[in-house]
Amino acid sequence: MQERLTKVTEWMNEKNIEVSFLNSTENVFYLSNFYTDPHERLMGILIFKQAQPVFVLPEMEAGQLKNTGWEYDIIGYSDHEDPWQLMQTTLEKKQLEKVEAVAIEKEVLTYKRSEEFLSFFPEAKVISIEEKLNDMRVVKDEAEITIIRRAANMADYGVQVGIDALEEGISEMEVLAKIEYELKRKGIREMSFSTMVLFGEKTGDPHGNPGDRTLKAGDMVLFDLGVVLDGYCSDITRTVAFKTVSDKQKDIYQTVLKAQQASLEKSKPGNRIGDLDNAARNIITDAGYGDYFPHRIGHGMGINVHEFPSISHLNDGILSKGMVYTIEPGIYIPGIGGVRIEDDVLVTADGYETLTKFPKELQIIE
Amino acid sequence: MQERLTKVTEWMNEKNIEVSFLNSTENVFYLSNFYTDPHERLMGILIFKQAQPVFVLPEMEAGQLKNTGWEYDIIGYSDHEDPWQLMQTTLEKKQLEKVEAVAIEKEVLTYKRSEEFLSFFPEAKVISIEEKLNDMRVVKDEAEITIIRRAANMADYGVQVGIDALEEGISEMEVLAKIEYELKRKGIREMSFSTMVLFGEKTGDPHGNPGDRTLKAGDMVLFDLGVVLDGYCSDITRTVAFKTVSDKQKDIYQTVLKAQQASLEKSKPGNRIGDLDNAARNIITDAGYGDYFPHRIGHGMGINVHEFPSISHLNDGILSKGMVYTIEPGIYIPGIGGVRIEDDVLVTADGYETLTKFPKELQIIE
Repeated sequence: MQERLTKVTEWMNEKNIEVSFLNSTENVFYLSNFYTDPHERLMGILIFKQAQPVFVLPEMEAGQLKNTGWEYDIIGYSDHEDPWQLMQTTLEKKQLEKVEAVAIEKEVLTYKRSEEFLSFFPEAKVISIEEKLNDMRVVKDEAEITIIRRAANMADYGVQVGIDALEEGISEMEVLAKIEYELKRKGIREMSFSTMVLFGEKTGDPHGNPGDRTLKAGDMVLFDLGVVLDGYCSDITRTVAFKTVSDKQKDIYQTVLKAQQASLEKSKPGNRIGDLDNAARNIITDAGYGDYFPHRIGHGMGINVHEFPSISHLNDGILSKGMVYTIEPGIYIPGIGGVRIEDDVLVTADGYETLTKFPKELQIIE
Repeated sequence: MQERLTKVTEWMNEKNIEVSFLNSTENVFYLSNFYTDPHERLMGILIFKQAQPVFVLPEMEAGQLKNTGWEYDIIGYSDHEDPWQLMQTTLEKKQLEKVEAVAIEKEVLTYKRSEEFLSFFPEAKVISIEEKLNDMRVVKDEAEITIIRRAANMADYGVQVGIDALEEGISEMEVLAKIEYELKRKGIREMSFSTMVLFGEKTGDPHGNPGDRTLKAGDMVLFDLGVVLDGYCSDITRTVAFKTVSDKQKDIYQTVLKAQQASLEKSKPGNRIGDLDNAARNIITDAGYGDYFPHRIGHGMGINVHEFPSISHLNDGILSKGMVYTIEPGIYIPGIGGVRIEDDVLVTADGYETLTKFPKELQIIE
């Protein structure tokens, strides 16, 4: 954590930013190892160019913060205190020189909170700190990879539970409920997004919602799920056939699988990120399904289930060792059905490793 | 919905606000009946003092919005378009007179989005529209009450499932998983907050987290849960004893129950809101547990699980027919254990009705 805070202050010195304030659950966790969402109550870290950081949070959470290892000052406020006033007192004590610039999370801080915070620095330029944090978070360290590996392992397990639950007449919601039940029994408190279980023609909508559609022979079944574990996310998609499979379904499946493999093989330090999308998209287009793959091929993943980098054909960024992202091509034919195959991918020194390991050959569930 | 939009424009005319922009999922739903969370994508309603409203959202959701009954203009944008630019074009077409004031959700709109929106009105005063919406939402209409009643009914069912699952050696997480499993099987997609199941000494922390603590004779068991149903929330707490109960536990339970009843009986149009908290707090204090009831007695509930009014002793507001809120006194003795009893309450013409109906006499589960 110390190293991460140091990187931020180095950046602030470069940019001549006197004070930064971060208050997203995710960035605060990244910089402090303290994961909390105090909802409407204010929580955040003040970082200074030339002084030690200060944590602001409800007093009742201060003990937990210290237990997590926070060594610096804490502004703990009770419900009848105004945290902004306490923050102002702290800032006055720091006797900052003329503040030329401050940094905030422009995409997180609300207008109201920005009014409070920026009133302390009426003449300062306001800079976004998000790009810096995104850059830092995009490459995962060993400790982060270990956690994501475990989260991916749990996602594999969720798919297995879902497949085991399939039987004629069961509904999408019932299968979904069984998956989350078994994951909760393993200690998972939170899914990384709303679990998707879709049958038959409903797999043809990439934004479909699970409901009371019941399973019948000849349906494709699509699972898209992930868990949050120790602050990090996983995200897997598998599609299987129930009892029988048509030639058309097989063709779609094999095309998606081939597309995914092509994209995975581009996962290597030094490669252009956009080429991962192109590799898969070309295969899908050549097979005649180009109009049925309407989304980018993947997204970075870590503390957020969607974070940097975006794996889109427009991204001219370059892959480096330690990046973690999804590769998830899909073909969706409205009214008919669809297939998506998604893995969590880690870029290694000379290639990649898929962290989700559930088998990908087309399975026909009896 | 039409009536709600009219109320907003009437308020805008009173305040001389030319344009309002609302983009919280909850207020947008309240004004349009369209419930959506497009995550990082922009979505919201532009409301004009003297023109029809306009909905801004990702093009792929425009069909659903129309199906919900939206009759006015829509700015639907694709991923390669800039919604702010489209919005600017729309605003230019409206040929607004000099804009003296605009309204936004100051507690929701991010700094970055406020920079975009307010750049269209560089000289306008910026007013918060939240108070107005809170005022409107605080009194529920018949349609809303019908939905909340069903959501409360599901919360009752969740408690029953939890109690049925209790057996020596089962863990908190296993009971929690069973509750959510059965609710999902009934079609519930989302809980209104993170479900709480706590055993024994863990009930002594009002912010405790369910884990692998297993159940044994003599434990109190606390359930706190709610569901989201058709956009509205419920929220119930019940505490039961497992196999045996000590005199001390009984005394705490009866004190909380008596305190809750006292507060419920104050629920009547015309009464001061803060007196609901005082009524319960006095009983708990007189019984010698005043130091162990650290939170307000309740909160308004509707589209948000926590909304206006806050049922705190400081609230000088007055109850009216149609308000819906929780009444949830608790006594928590650190290391020993605690009891909380919570109902969802509707203010009727001459008193109240509890929408959650699960029995409240002390139950000893065998």
